[in-house]
Order: sequence, then structure tokens, then C-alpha cells
Amino acid sequence: MSISTCGHIRTIDYANGELLLIDQTALPDTYRVLSFAEAEPIARAIETMIVRGAPAIGITAAFGIAIGVRKLRHRNLDSFLIACAEICGRFAKTRPTAVNLFWAIQQMKQVIESRAEADTIADIKKALEEKAIQLMDADIDINRRIGECGAELLGNEMTILTHCNAGALATVAYGTALSVFRFAHWAGKRIKIISSETRPRMQGAYLTAWEMLKEGIPVQQISDNMSAFFMAQGSIHMVIVGADRIAANGDTANKIGTLMHAVLAREFNIPFFIAAPISTFDFATPTGNDIAIEFRSTDEMCKIRGEAVYPEGVQMENPAFDVTPHKYITGYITENGIFSHPSELLTEMAFPIAKIATA
Amino acid sequence: MSISTCGHIRTIDYANGELLLIDQTALPDTYRVLSFAEAEPIARAIETMIVRGAPAIGITAAFGIAIGVRKLRHRNLDSFLIACAEICGRFAKTRPTAVNLFWAIQQMKQVIESRAEADTIADIKKALEEKAIQLMDADIDINRRIGECGAELLGNEMTILTHCNAGALATVAYGTALSVFRFAHWAGKRIKIISSETRPRMQGAYLTAWEMLKEGIPVQQISDNMSAFFMAQGSIHMVIVGADRIAANGDTANKIGTLMHAVLAREFNIPFFIAAPISTFDFATPTGNDIAIEFRSTDEMCKIRGEAVYPEGVQMENPAFDVTPHKYITGYITENGIFSHPSELLTEMAFPIAKIATA
Repeated sequence: MSISTCGHIRTIDYANGELLLIDQTALPDTYRVLSFAEAEPIARAIETMIVRGAPAIGITAAFGIAIGVRKLRHRNLDSFLIACAEICGRFAKTRPTAVNLFWAIQQMKQVIESRAEADTIADIKKALEEKAIQLMDADIDINRRIGECGAELLGNEMTILTHCNAGALATVAYGTALSVFRFAHWAGKRIKIISSETRPRMQGAYLTAWEMLKEGIPVQQISDNMSAFFMAQGSIHMVIVGADRIAANGDTANKIGTLMHAVLAREFNIPFFIAAPISTFDFATPTGNDIAIEFRSTDEMCKIRGEAVYPEGVQMENPAFDVTPHKYITGYITENGIFSHPSELLTEMAFPIAKIATA
Repeated sequence: MSISTCGHIRTIDYANGELLLIDQTALPDTYRVLSFAEAEPIARAIETMIVRGAPAIGITAAFGIAIGVRKLRHRNLDSFLIACAEICGRFAKTRPTAVNLFWAIQQMKQVIESRAEADTIADIKKALEEKAIQLMDADIDINRRIGECGAELLGNEMTILTHCNAGALATVAYGTALSVFRFAHWAGKRIKIISSETRPRMQGAYLTAWEMLKEGIPVQQISDNMSAFFMAQGSIHMVIVGADRIAANGDTANKIGTLMHAVLAREFNIPFFIAAPISTFDFATPTGNDIAIEFRSTDEMCKIRGEAVYPEGVQMENPAFDVTPHKYITGYITENGIFSHPSELLTEMAFPIAKIATA
């Protein structure tokens, strides 16, 4: 099985009615692409983090819904619509924090609702498939614009810290934070990336370092607890990370550890940017306190490569995200420009922001 | 082989002319005690971190010198003294950051120098063995006093974060930070410890959690990047960590990641204490900028349990320590009381602090 890469990493593709995903649980050891022709395995792929990253799980859910609906055998419109809603509901339960997931589900629901009165079941199925493809293609374009826009911030010889993976692997292609690095690199700027390991799942080491190496961008791997050392030394000039949800007041949920880097960046006078598409802004959520934080299995912490490494009997909790208050964030790099507060998106861009119903 | 434990963890012991050490590279899976009858394997045990922790490597070096000198066959005093100096020099090269190592070596050198004119080679050998035993016994007493003294700070239902292992395993017995927890626990206070994992070597998970579980003290394991989450939540009431070297101005070198927790603690208004014996204060080193930071093999980062987990080609550096400036430190818990600045040790205690020559 192959996935169209255009010479770069392409995380999600769709061909012959099947969804193709890079299996991110196998990286960096093994590069393999999995194909999906049913909704439930796609939902489980999101839950088990075969695919992860806020934009990527949104697009994946869109295809999951399109594929799940296409398989429905209903001939009665009402029961078909109930089954559609069940499929959408299944995807809304996969992961709670990234708003892009709920945004994408809402996009699909809108297709169903807008067609429900006028079109046939076959037309709705076709429209959902087209919508998922359109969201996928738009994601690539959005990330390209995020990259071009953010690259302006980077100067020659700059070293930028990033946490977790806001890369091509977190999107359809290019990435968000890593798109910024790619476009700066392609513009000939000599930059270096410091990748924070991101325990417990090590997305920094397994995914971000892997992506940057494939791109030919110099990357230094650190453990999460080393960022203060390198910041104090003056070796880090900027921090750029992704986001799973940005509240109306600018508070940002992102991978656990982001808050730590943000507090440290402010302490050491280092600019701290969020790179995210506008679909990550959630104006229905007033502040970070209102964002649901996912707690994942503690097996992720105490097992390394399947082997238990913690002593038995120790207590654990595994919050997968933390919330960085707006005061630590220098700006938000989006496909429509760089903003210092989400309110600028509403006022300056007159961008139509829908209220998104999250689970 | 057994090690006298007095019902508690005893990391270092000496019997029948042999040094006994818990093999800390085997914990928490396997508890085993190794015996040493030669200087060179003892030096290597320090380098490979079979024994680690500032006080523990000081005592280990003292025994390494006593055992190494005892094995010397010299009958000529001058050549004997040269050989003694070589053995001391070997131990001074094992690890650079912890001042307790150089302090202990200096204690042994003083024995040699004070006896060199009046005593026989046999007397010097005997005096060195006695000195090492005396330092070992004193360490237990010092740590008991640190524990009793620090326990006064802890109230019922308090949750205290600690980083790395400043435990019995970092000393002869009791520990420094963990001695505080033990004595509070023994005094009937209900406390909970949050143990920060401490990548890359995981001393928090492998050693601190193991010690606290053996002691019956509730312990929650977190990955290093989670402390901000739990601090922001209000779940952490105090931070107590150990130290490898405290400069004259109070700047403190300790395990990599300490600075991160200290900056976060101040940001979230959480008291941050150092627990350390007076032998960790280095008045010959004016500030933290003057402390040599050990960079260890990057294999410690990219290999987990012997298996390479980072993608090939990634850059790495492995600073084993960082320096926390005095401004982040609420106080220093020592065997002679709690101080807010090292200068109080000199003025209030009139304690004779020798200048220590470090490598």
C-alpha cells in the first residue's frame, strides 16, 4: 500500500473508498500505512493514537463518518439519518480535548442536515465523501499558509523549541508548528529545532525528530526537563507549539508539558507562539478552565515499549493535555495571519466563527 | 550477601574490609547488593551510577580511598604517599558536579597529611579506614537531623513534589529530601509524595517511588512535564529536592529538571526547599555559574533499557545537572537548621567551612 507523498510526509489520504493513515504508533522504527474501509476501526485508530494531532483527527473523523455512512444499508431516510447521527456520536466520543474533532464532525453534520430534505440517501453519501475530501485538501492549504506566515518570524541561525508533534503527522501534510519550520527551511534560513521528548508517549522523539530528519532540518532531541537548562543558557530563541483547543480568551490546551515550556519561556524572555488553524479556536469555550482535559490510560506512563518500568503500587494519573493561560502566549500563527489574541480573529478578519457543540 | 538495614534502606555498608553497595542500576526490578574489595571497581561504580547521589558518592569515594590505600604494597613512605595521592586523584575524576565527593576526598587527604610525618604506613591505612567509617556513620546522623528538622515544615495532608532521588539511596541511609518525608511520616503526618520521573535515567520512578513504597508513604509518579499541570491545579503544596552543590550565593546545582520545577514553583507560589548536608555547601564557588556541569553519555537518553528509541541522526546533549538560582529557593534544610541563605551558615552557626579544592 502506498500513500501519495508529493515528496513530503502525507499522513492522511483517501483512495478507492478507503482511508489511508500512517501508523504513528510504529514510528520511528517502522513506516507503514494502514487502510480503513469501516467506521469503527477508524474510531479506534483515533482512540489508540494510530492517528493523532488535532487537525489530523478532525480529518480522520470526517472520513470515518463518510465511510461509515456509505456502508449504511438503510432505504428509509429517517432511520438513515438516525444511523448517521449515531456514527457522528461515535466519533465525538473518541477523544475529548481537540476541538478540531468536533469542528469536523459539525461540518459533516451540516452536510447531512442541509441535504436531508432535498436529496436522496445516495446523494447525501456522495456529499459526505466530497466534504471529507474537501476538508482534507483544505487542511493542506491551511497548513501551507500557516507555514508561510510563521516563517516570517524566523531569522537565520535561530533555534526554536517545539513540544510533542505539531507536524505533518498531526495534520494531512506540512503540519502547523513544523510547517513554520519547513517553510523557513525552504526559504533558505538556517534554523535548528530542539524537540522536547514529550513523555509519556514520546511524540517529540518518535515523530517530530523523525519528521525534521526526513526534511533535512537539524534537530536536537532533549528530555522534557532540559528546556530550562537550554533556555537559561540562551540557546533557545523561540518556542512554537501546536494546539488542541484555543478558548475565546486565548487560553490554549495542548499536549501535557506545554504549560511548563510556556512558563519557562516567559521567565527567560523567549517568545512563545501557538501555530494552529482557525478551526482550533473555540469561541464557545470562554476560558481554559472550561476545556475538558483527557486522562488517558496510565499504562502509557508505566510501560515503555510494553514493559512495565515503574515499581508496583505507585499511584498514577495521566493527563494528556494542560492549559497554557493566554498571558504566556506571545501570539497565534494561523492561516490568516499572526494574532496576539483570538478576539482579533473576530474583529479584524470578520471570520464567521460557528459555535461548536463538543461532547 | 546481605547489608545491614536496621529495618530501613541502607545503601552503603562496610564489612570484613569490603564495601557493600546496593546496585541502583538494577532497581526497581532487582534488589541486589554488590561487594567491592578494590579501588578501581569502586571508582567505576561511581561513574556508572551503581551508586549515585551527592552524599553517597562522597562516602563511597572515602571507602574507595581507604580500600585502595590498604592494598598498596609500598614500604617506602614517600612512594606510598605518591600512590595515595594517585588514588585520591582517581576518585576526583569520577564525577565533576557533586561537591560532597571532593569534600570527602579532602577529608581523606587530611588524614594522610596529618599522619604522614608521625605515623607508619600501617597506621595511616588504619586511620583512613576509621575515617571512612566515621564519615559513613556521621552521614546517617546528619540525615536523621535533616529529616527531623525538615519534618517540622510539613503539615498534615500535604502533598510534596520531589525530583530525582534525594533518598536513602543517595546517602548511607534516610536520605535528605526523603528523610524529611520519612520523619514526617513517622511523626504520624499524612503526606503524599509526587515523584517526578527524572528522564533520562528515571531515578524518580526507579528509586524514589520504590523507596517511598517500601516506607509505606503514598507516592504518585508523574512524568517530568506534568508538574506544571498539578501545580496549576493546586495539588502540590511544597517542593523539596536534594542538591549536588550549593554555591556561596545559594545557587544550587541539582539533577537536570530541578530548575524547571523551581521556576514553576515560584510562578505558582509554592515553597521550594533544598535539603542537603552542610558538606554540600561550597563556599569556594561564588555562584552557580562557577559550578562544573557534567555532560553524560547521550546513550542514557536515546536508549531505554538498552534499546535505541530515538531516530538515527538526531543531535543530543545530556547535561546531568542544572543550576537553580538562589532567587527561586525558599530555604535550605540542613542538619543544623533551616536557612534562607548560605551566609547564615557562616554567621549564625560559626561553622568552620573549609575551602574545597575541586577537580
